[in-house]
Amino acid sequence: MKLNYKVAIVGASGYSGEELVGLLLGHPHAELVAVTSRQYAGQTVAQIFPRFAGHPKAKVLRFTEPDAAALAKQAKVVFLALPHGVAAEFAVPLLKSGSVVIDLSADFRLKSAEVYKEFYAHDHPAPALLAKSVYGLPEVHRARLKKASLIASPGCYPTSILLPTIPLLKAGLIKPNSIIADSLSGVSGAGRKAEIDYLFCECNESVRPYGVPKHRHLSEIEEQLSLASGEKVTIQFTPHLIPVNRGILTTLYLAPEKHFSNATGAAALGEQIAACYQAAYADEPFVRVLEGKALPDTKNVTGTNVVEIAWRLDPRTGRLIVMSAEDNIVKGASGQAVQSMNIRCGFPETAGLV
Amino acid sequence: MKLNYKVAIVGASGYSGEELVGLLLGHPHAELVAVTSRQYAGQTVAQIFPRFAGHPKAKVLRFTEPDAAALAKQAKVVFLALPHGVAAEFAVPLLKSGSVVIDLSADFRLKSAEVYKEFYAHDHPAPALLAKSVYGLPEVHRARLKKASLIASPGCYPTSILLPTIPLLKAGLIKPNSIIADSLSGVSGAGRKAEIDYLFCECNESVRPYGVPKHRHLSEIEEQLSLASGEKVTIQFTPHLIPVNRGILTTLYLAPEKHFSNATGAAALGEQIAACYQAAYADEPFVRVLEGKALPDTKNVTGTNVVEIAWRLDPRTGRLIVMSAEDNIVKGASGQAVQSMNIRCGFPETAGLV
Amino acid sequence: MKLNYKVAIVGASGYSGEELVGLLLGHPHAELVAVTSRQYAGQTVAQIFPRFAGHPKAKVLRFTEPDAAALAKQAKVVFLALPHGVAAEFAVPLLKSGSVVIDLSADFRLKSAEVYKEFYAHDHPAPALLAKSVYGLPEVHRARLKKASLIASPGCYPTSILLPTIPLLKAGLIKPNSIIADSLSGVSGAGRKAEIDYLFCECNESVRPYGVPKHRHLSEIEEQLSLASGEKVTIQFTPHLIPVNRGILTTLYLAPEKHFSNATGAAALGEQIAACYQAAYADEPFVRVLEGKALPDTKNVTGTNVVEIAWRLDPRTGRLIVMSAEDNIVKGASGQAVQSMNIRCGFPETAGLV
Amino acid sequence: MKLNYKVAIVGASGYSGEELVGLLLGHPHAELVAVTSRQYAGQTVAQIFPRFAGHPKAKVLRFTEPDAAALAKQAKVVFLALPHGVAAEFAVPLLKSGSVVIDLSADFRLKSAEVYKEFYAHDHPAPALLAKSVYGLPEVHRARLKKASLIASPGCYPTSILLPTIPLLKAGLIKPNSIIADSLSGVSGAGRKAEIDYLFCECNESVRPYGVPKHRHLSEIEEQLSLASGEKVTIQFTPHLIPVNRGILTTLYLAPEKHFSNATGAAALGEQIAACYQAAYADEPFVRVLEGKALPDTKNVTGTNVVEIAWRLDPRTGRLIVMSAEDNIVKGASGQAVQSMNIRCGFPETAGLV
Repeated sequence: MKLNYKVAIVGASGYSGEELVGLLLGHPHAELVAVTSRQYAGQTVAQIFPRFAGHPKAKVLRFTEPDAAALAKQAKVVFLALPHGVAAEFAVPLLKSGSVVIDLSADFRLKSAEVYKEFYAHDHPAPALLAKSVYGLPEVHRARLKKASLIASPGCYPTSILLPTIPLLKAGLIKPNSIIADSLSGVSGAGRKAEIDYLFCECNESVRPYGVPKHRHLSEIEEQLSLASGEKVTIQFTPHLIPVNRGILTTLYLAPEKHFSNATGAAALGEQIAACYQAAYADEPFVRVLEGKALPDTKNVTGTNVVEIAWRLDPRTGRLIVMSAEDNIVKGASGQAVQSMNIRCGFPETAGLV
Repeated sequence: MKLNYKVAIVGASGYSGEELVGLLLGHPHAELVAVTSRQYAGQTVAQIFPRFAGHPKAKVLRFTEPDAAALAKQAKVVFLALPHGVAAEFAVPLLKSGSVVIDLSADFRLKSAEVYKEFYAHDHPAPALLAKSVYGLPEVHRARLKKASLIASPGCYPTSILLPTIPLLKAGLIKPNSIIADSLSGVSGAGRKAEIDYLFCECNESVRPYGVPKHRHLSEIEEQLSLASGEKVTIQFTPHLIPVNRGILTTLYLAPEKHFSNATGAAALGEQIAACYQAAYADEPFVRVLEGKALPDTKNVTGTNVVEIAWRLDPRTGRLIVMSAEDNIVKGASGQAVQSMNIRCGFPETAGLV
Repeated sequence: MKLNYKVAIVGASGYSGEELVGLLLGHPHAELVAVTSRQYAGQTVAQIFPRFAGHPKAKVLRFTEPDAAALAKQAKVVFLALPHGVAAEFAVPLLKSGSVVIDLSADFRLKSAEVYKEFYAHDHPAPALLAKSVYGLPEVHRARLKKASLIASPGCYPTSILLPTIPLLKAGLIKPNSIIADSLSGVSGAGRKAEIDYLFCECNESVRPYGVPKHRHLSEIEEQLSLASGEKVTIQFTPHLIPVNRGILTTLYLAPEKHFSNATGAAALGEQIAACYQAAYADEPFVRVLEGKALPDTKNVTGTNVVEIAWRLDPRTGRLIVMSAEDNIVKGASGQAVQSMNIRCGFPETAGLV
Repeated sequence: MKLNYKVAIVGASGYSGEELVGLLLGHPHAELVAVTSRQYAGQTVAQIFPRFAGHPKAKVLRFTEPDAAALAKQAKVVFLALPHGVAAEFAVPLLKSGSVVIDLSADFRLKSAEVYKEFYAHDHPAPALLAKSVYGLPEVHRARLKKASLIASPGCYPTSILLPTIPLLKAGLIKPNSIIADSLSGVSGAGRKAEIDYLFCECNESVRPYGVPKHRHLSEIEEQLSLASGEKVTIQFTPHLIPVNRGILTTLYLAPEKHFSNATGAAALGEQIAACYQAAYADEPFVRVLEGKALPDTKNVTGTNVVEIAWRLDPRTGRLIVMSAEDNIVKGASGQAVQSMNIRCGFPETAGLV
């Protein structure tokens, strides 16, 4: 195994960037050689993120101004933790220089520049790269990630919705256009931005929906679901902001292809669903399908790269309810990006993530 | 107007009971003459609830052991803030003695003792009273509340679900069996009970579904929806626990009777929905249908008796999304019970509630 | 009693301003005729503060650009909820026009323009007014407030420190220079400002000291303590930020003038302390000295204008520990300002505050 | 280095026990072979603590009834995470059987059975062992921990108070009897106990002092301070409960031996203090003395075994203010216990803790 791949992070000052710094400082096979931030240039990682001050490298590694050419020379793998639009601009020169780029923004998650424009309200800055990028959901695209030079790490909500639904869609167990996803996210999902809406007093003792009915993440969710089901899928998605730092809880309302209206019918269908999840996830290190009476709880997954999934059939309504919990910053962002790096670089997939 | 009706609270030690104490101490036309609690018998209201210590009566009013006969003599209106099953036992003698009983438990919310048993897992303690009780949702049953001797104050989740949906059902705008209700509740909804699950460290930085797929509140929700629509309604309902003290946010996914798939269709249907809510709630003091871009936020309603409602049509899916926010302890419990008292006693409906 | 004094608020968009809006909308003897905010000019109170939307006036009262001349014509009493430095500029023309000014900033709390400059780092904008202002702590300066034209409403920390200590100092029970005040404040104390430090994720699951060792509020605390004791007092004060919306809890470490080192000595001194507080606060509507085993808890006072105080003598160390709890936005800001208005205008002191 | 010491935890169901399970499952040199809990006997670690379900051992390791004889055979090191009083009973047979016992309760922290009885209100269950135990504060007692068979792991508050003060006392820089410690603790400090006081709704939006003025932890704090200073030390200590899951923030008010009253004096004394801390902690992996303007914040240390310390001299009062932050469950309990195990067993001191 190749040890000590040199890696860099562009835009390391937000919540995902900070988490990446922590994960990569502790990674057994990656060496963090550069972190950039216009805001913090010149200061050490230990000064900006006291939590990591105990790590020897944190005291010497200094934030620099972002410079794609310099980064390409320093690092084999470059993580982009930048706003959409900006990320693509950095990706272009890095890819030309031969770096592997793992982008945490939305810039390379879609195949269509038109859909991108519809949801992000500006022209795509590098449409030629869209065909090249691989959607960094390892449980679905592992094979292609092994050779990807441009990895588009999924959004936090999409991860919590796609992992529970894709196996069911692939197995033909649910009606593709029946999907309703109701999601609850911690405030870190909004990023480390100085906006009134995300002040402590505006979020604490508050819960509220937002982005109804057309949140940007719909674009990548629907593209991936369409890919899985083989037909164009349109879903309902409502995100809510809840007063926790981290965690996404998604509740999915699904219509099974097979009608059932009593316990017997539910039991029969239940066996198929259990088998479907078993086949999909029994060997996945970061997906935990709960058994018995257990239901997902974000506190069981925060700080980890795990998605918890549980499901219930309701014979009263004939619906399938699937619930998932994840850490929006880990499996929903930086942890999953590291998981993709592990796959791409030939490291053990769980390296630095357990 | 009749001033100074004497009122009492049985079981005043929980969160709803405490809120009732506060509302009734400050009520311009009610005189709180008795509060009972086995646990606190002998102590003053000021000692147990320091928040009310500034009220002159709080220093002299002492908790007593519950005694229906004594209460019936003392008070014209008796509020029961007791667990289901226990409440019914108190109601029987109080009603015989001529008191008006406003019960905050689930004991008198249903018309059918069988459905009660199905959802509450024990025989109904006083089935003969079920026909007599009036469901205390003033916006729906105001006329009957004026003469009710037994008022069954609605549950917190049901209030947040029924107020947004009943007008739409009555107007025939939505398909009755399409209703999916996804609700998020503050921890006070679990009551002041010493259970590990509701400890600070078990709830803080956590969000989790529970009672999936058959929560008890389904019984009263479906009975009321069936009443409104004229046919038997079965709905999907998923409650979640979120780390706030107070507040319920409900997101409803509804299928309109009228198909629409573009902005024009949405605009036409939107006019009907707006008119429907306008007709139902324009004059209601405690229902606020939001306009423009505003969406419900529990922090705008906690501590008040108001329900906020907003709705959106999604031309992509053809669905109607309706969202509501309320304080589970006020409009979802004690405030609504006082609102019913105001109606029953001929006080201004907003007395003591603004 | 004069009803319907017309009142205005300049700078009504922050937390104190919002609280003032709520208190004055509900006040039985004041009529809120103007609210200003550059940011929200043109919008109604109901739009900006949905919580108050149920009040009829909230739907018609619109924020305006601040204009001292116009305000002076409209309102008899003008509240200034502005940053220090800016407040003084508005006070000058308003006072000239004969308005009563109640300023919630620090601009008129000190008698010395030099001390102001030492602590606020700029020249005082209107030093001539300092002699004229009355420090709006009703329990201490009630008599002078009755005739004040310029009232400097105290800071949140100072209120929580002065009320527990001034009676002890006046009675000669404690050594003036022994005072150590350790205070914990909710995040609303930082104001509704878009700064990274006050984001939800930066405050939740965090507690931190700040402004050590020379916080600005020391200036007014020490001036008031010096006034009470008759000698120049210097104290130790450490504020901390804790993850609650509202509330200040202050723990005071004091050296009694009288030495004691056992239970007997403590009992004797305890009688004097109890008598001192009894004399000072038995008739005060907004100060609650706790008895028995009770200790202050912010949750008992948030949303009220009450300060809770408890004290303990420690025979092991010979120290007196006094603890206080208040709502930083109510008794620590807007509630206290309304209390001063009530006194100044001849209303019942508790009007609109219970 | 000896790998795979077998270790066990008695009483693994509380917050400290759960943290120990996590730390020991991930420890490179310890093998967790037994966990006991009357309540959970028969269930797997993965079932009770879903957070650890990803660890292969968590699925097979089952809680057992506590049985000292069996444990002594299984494990070389036994951690006791039991209530005081109960812990001592288990320690006796384990020590006889040759196990190393690391006790997280208060049972072996004091040298005097009389002081124990004064503070814990019952006779010590095994007074003969008191002389044998070593107080498990590695930064102070490292040498003796290397050979200890009975390690009394310190309390959470004591750790946050002793680490900042002991070097100053040893260097003669502060007056021993001047110490005032004002501490703020997260709710996990109260343990996973089903009590009303620690319910979410009783703690959220609340801050309160408790145990004033004689908290139990005073006994071990004063014993350790007396040991460090060579004279009997009595201190003031006030704990407060704040709404965070984890973290203790302590603010210490100290009187330097050397008088100073201006910046020059402060600078001179400051050099001595800086040198004192530098000598004590420059090489300590888990103590971080902050530089520049940084002040401790619990969010920088939660989830780690680190204590952050900062200090300020106040020329206005002549006092030294020292502040510390730690995770009460890690450095204040389980992490420190593992640190002691590492020392005792000859593992690298940071093993399993970074």
